[in-house]
Amino acid sequence: MAESADQAPGEEHLLAAAYLSRVAEPASVPLWLFVQQHGYLTSAAAVRAGNVPAEVASCTEARRTAADPHVDLAVAERTGIRLLTPAHPDWPHFAFAALQVTGLRRAAQWRAGLRARPPRGELIPPLALWVRGNAPLATVGVRSVAVVGSRAATAYGEHVASEFSYGLARHEVVVVSGGAYGIDAAAHRGALAAEGCSVLVSAGGLDRPYPAGHRHLYDRTAEHGLLVSERPPGSAPHRQRFLSRNRLIAALGTATLVVEAASRSGALNSAGYARDLGRPVLAVPGPVTSAMSAGCHALVQRDEEPARLVTSVAEVLSYCGGGQQVGGSEDAAAGGEARSRSYDGLDLVARSVLDGFPGRGRSVTEAELSRLSGQPITQVIAALPVLREAGLIAVAREGYRLANPAR
Amino acid sequence: MAESADQAPGEEHLLAAAYLSRVAEPASVPLWLFVQQHGYLTSAAAVRAGNVPAEVASCTEARRTAADPHVDLAVAERTGIRLLTPAHPDWPHFAFAALQVTGLRRAAQWRAGLRARPPRGELIPPLALWVRGNAPLATVGVRSVAVVGSRAATAYGEHVASEFSYGLARHEVVVVSGGAYGIDAAAHRGALAAEGCSVLVSAGGLDRPYPAGHRHLYDRTAEHGLLVSERPPGSAPHRQRFLSRNRLIAALGTATLVVEAASRSGALNSAGYARDLGRPVLAVPGPVTSAMSAGCHALVQRDEEPARLVTSVAEVLSYCGGGQQVGGSEDAAAGGEARSRSYDGLDLVARSVLDGFPGRGRSVTEAELSRLSGQPITQVIAALPVLREAGLIAVAREGYRLANPAR
Repeated sequence: MAESADQAPGEEHLLAAAYLSRVAEPASVPLWLFVQQHGYLTSAAAVRAGNVPAEVASCTEARRTAADPHVDLAVAERTGIRLLTPAHPDWPHFAFAALQVTGLRRAAQWRAGLRARPPRGELIPPLALWVRGNAPLATVGVRSVAVVGSRAATAYGEHVASEFSYGLARHEVVVVSGGAYGIDAAAHRGALAAEGCSVLVSAGGLDRPYPAGHRHLYDRTAEHGLLVSERPPGSAPHRQRFLSRNRLIAALGTATLVVEAASRSGALNSAGYARDLGRPVLAVPGPVTSAMSAGCHALVQRDEEPARLVTSVAEVLSYCGGGQQVGGSEDAAAGGEARSRSYDGLDLVARSVLDGFPGRGRSVTEAELSRLSGQPITQVIAALPVLREAGLIAVAREGYRLANPAR
Repeated sequence: MAESADQAPGEEHLLAAAYLSRVAEPASVPLWLFVQQHGYLTSAAAVRAGNVPAEVASCTEARRTAADPHVDLAVAERTGIRLLTPAHPDWPHFAFAALQVTGLRRAAQWRAGLRARPPRGELIPPLALWVRGNAPLATVGVRSVAVVGSRAATAYGEHVASEFSYGLARHEVVVVSGGAYGIDAAAHRGALAAEGCSVLVSAGGLDRPYPAGHRHLYDRTAEHGLLVSERPPGSAPHRQRFLSRNRLIAALGTATLVVEAASRSGALNSAGYARDLGRPVLAVPGPVTSAMSAGCHALVQRDEEPARLVTSVAEVLSYCGGGQQVGGSEDAAAGGEARSRSYDGLDLVARSVLDGFPGRGRSVTEAELSRLSGQPITQVIAALPVLREAGLIAVAREGYRLANPAR
């Protein structure tokens, strides 16, 4: 990026980010790559002028003159919504590290000609996020569970989603979900009942709750947790936006829990993203006579990377860094806070180096980390002991890897 | 054995077997080993005379003078019960092959001093079986499923047990279970509704249905399938007899299906036997809110040899040799018949060689088979092509192994 990331971003940066957020549909790989190369200000100006490569033009041409970031930012301010970019200290670098790596890998394949055309709706981080609420976003993904499932959930599914989310929130685990009827709503309600934090990731603008009947759920979630969207205010929740939204839910969860899903449920799409990102996929079993559990069972039965069957909050906690103190919620909460503090205490270089790590289990050398993180090798070498001290990375046979969540 | 196995056993053999069946509790390893060494006639006479090693005396002394095989055989004849031993053509050699191997291995360990005392209730074949009904026992275990679960089953569990057993029976798969309330009864009822064959393995005498309310279930099962017990007529269903009975259920099933089981259910004991015998363990999921499904979920979550989660008859069929023709019951039925005919067509030497094979997946050389089966090496070498032609064994990297059930 051309801009410095050492301070809170200025108004010009926000205007550019708001423009870029409006001008293309979410998860446009060509635009994301263009911004990675040229930065927000230069990219926004180039797009508006139509002075961009063909693949960027094709996904920005339709709105490049009509998009007005002043209007979007004004509406956002009126409705309590703020705009975050990777330059903001509250950006969830940790949660999005896997998206960053996946995006760069796929982009490299595309450039090398291994992929026929620039991919759409792919696993790249968002360029910016519209956010409402006061909970910290930076540490979401450090100790969180994406709770997903069908809109047409059964009473059993809603009960489990609500009970599990309640239990997770009681252990200071952030619950991440969408804003739909069924499992999504039950998950937020469970977290709210525990006075915990939940993150509602919307496919449309945050000033347009969808479904409309969930305005109160949006408001309550914003009060105790966060509303997050990749789309500017006023955006309708189009179908494709749900799919790209699902990648953010998977990325923001340390693990993804599928509570109920029919055989072709969108929740399986979220589970697939979680798998692609190297995150554990957990599935709740149910009666074999219930079509709403068929997708969960199929996930457990997969030959490759099967989901883990989970039946209790304690089992879920073992996959999101809280398992060692299931019996004692206070101890577990303290562990979570300690980890959050570890991350909060990092300087931006250390965070960037951390972001450069590939998915869990894979190790990298200092030189690879320099390339992946975009930080000079001397800075990488300086940052590694800090990250290790914070318990965020571990020494691997060849280099370093992300630390395992404590079991 | 001292007796020849080339013809139907005579009255003296049956009297000896009836005596041995009465004199000790089931699954007495010392007595089984003694009979393996000396044959039925000699062993029975030696036990009655008290002329046996201490470890055999300790498990036979209490009843050695009181046991009267004439009475037991007379009661059996009056109540339609017959006595089978390995010398009878209808003995299920194929199903008990794994028990034979396990029993010999453990006995060898005991003799070598690796086990402190002669094991009780171990994985050995029965010395004899009391049987009522007209279905053939010899081929049970070639294409069968042990359906097990809690007595205190839920309506969901009984529904699944009944539906699955119905579907299995429609595909000519034999359903094996106990005679208890709950899952057992539902399994037999499902098979009966499909006009299929089920095998009810009782812990007590077959003239004493347990629970007493299941007299009608016993009668209907005998009519269409088989009642089987290791205990002579009149025996009460003691607790230890249930445990040794469970090993027979596991051995008679090509796979063991756990439909519902609480955390400490006896059904998990059957599943453990199936695992020890190298048989697939299948578990039906259920609501995480149901204590009756907790045992099933725990089986799927095991680190070592986890059970496979199954949700349909088609999935169960894939583990008992009927998966390739799930859509067409007639074809699948024909496959089952063909396999039964294959086994029926074997001479006794070939059957003995087949019995000598260890559990699925493990391979043996001709010399090992000679030792395991008790057949001369020349007979083993002659029998192997016959068994291979019948599709019962396959060539392995080192020697031969049992054929995989067709998928």
